[in-house]
Amino acid sequence: MEIKVMQKILNENDQIAQQNRKELEKQGIVLINLMSSPGSGKTSLIENTVKSLDHKISVIEGDIQTTLDAERIAKLGIETYQINTGPFGGDCHLEAAWIKNALGEMGTEETDLIFVENIGNLVCPAEFDIGAHHNVLVLSVTEGEDKPLKYPLAFRNSSVCLISKIDLLPYLDIDMDKIKSNISKVNPQANIIEISNKTGEGLENWYDFLISQIKK
Amino acid sequence: MEIKVMQKILNENDQIAQQNRKELEKQGIVLINLMSSPGSGKTSLIENTVKSLDHKISVIEGDIQTTLDAERIAKLGIETYQINTGPFGGDCHLEAAWIKNALGEMGTEETDLIFVENIGNLVCPAEFDIGAHHNVLVLSVTEGEDKPLKYPLAFRNSSVCLISKIDLLPYLDIDMDKIKSNISKVNPQANIIEISNKTGEGLENWYDFLISQIKK
Repeated sequence: MEIKVMQKILNENDQIAQQNRKELEKQGIVLINLMSSPGSGKTSLIENTVKSLDHKISVIEGDIQTTLDAERIAKLGIETYQINTGPFGGDCHLEAAWIKNALGEMGTEETDLIFVENIGNLVCPAEFDIGAHHNVLVLSVTEGEDKPLKYPLAFRNSSVCLISKIDLLPYLDIDMDKIKSNISKVNPQANIIEISNKTGEGLENWYDFLISQIKK
Repeated sequence: MEIKVMQKILNENDQIAQQNRKELEKQGIVLINLMSSPGSGKTSLIENTVKSLDHKISVIEGDIQTTLDAERIAKLGIETYQINTGPFGGDCHLEAAWIKNALGEMGTEETDLIFVENIGNLVCPAEFDIGAHHNVLVLSVTEGEDKPLKYPLAFRNSSVCLISKIDLLPYLDIDMDKIKSNISKVNPQANIIEISNKTGEGLENWYDFLISQIKK
């Protein structure tokens, strides 16, 4: 007797995302998709990571407009590709096809790790698979404890949640345990790491995670 | 000789937004649309304002999910209407039709001022006119100086820009003059007000603005 199996039919974006992931795996490259609200410290995190890890890292910067973050990263002497999603009112997320195009133009042969700094918002980027091996969500302590409950998709789709700006904790009425328990409510598997890009506290745990993922 | 005039043809959302604005004007009600990144302090701002102003205020809360903010506001004993844009992956903005519907259900006869707390992101809400008399953008000092340049539409469409969390300035490497000059670059007309919801600093200037707008 025939068993009917319902399969998820991938839409075009998901198909290209799968291709990106597989193509990078063939080359032994890890793709990390960084998502957050504006100003949580994604660019500072990349700067610290590039300075600290002894691996070849490239960066794809997603912004609606400006090349401000790409200019910061390029100063580190690493390959940086800017995707601008358009003039005023451009797209609020990156799509797999744009990443595919960027990867093709970058030349990735000797790269170990590629960061995508997605557009700064907690809603739209989480809806589009770009082909990353890990989505990493950065939540700064200044944003409040309730954000995982209010923007669950972004937290649910991320294997790592970095809680940033912990150096500001003494000056805030924020309960770190509540942030963590809210993350765990929407994503019990999330690997939660507390960091400060300013003092460097906790970054070793982030680097350990990355090193465990790098194939080369 | 006939003079041809090209007119902007309003799309459906813009038409309903116009209706909302006119209908509220007839009733002498001011509608303020609050936009920001997640965690900039919109809800705290509403709480402080409701406690300080001697006017009848109502609130429409926009969230993808949860009623956390609405519950905070309802504790103040004022009328609160929650719009949830859907379960995981819901809309990243509010639209004029939903505001029209909310206004119809709320009963606004005795209201002086209505706040809409839009969904927390700097991209999509700015693309949809909801019929507000003023868009007000809240940017917290922790988000960095470059945000007006990276998300210009939201700043350009706002007549007032509140710079929040100024109590944290001593603990941040942030240049307030640069935040302000970047706001002025994308919106030279913006009324910029520095505030702290925690200490109350600067809120008088915000209240003065609101009182100057209230018709009743």
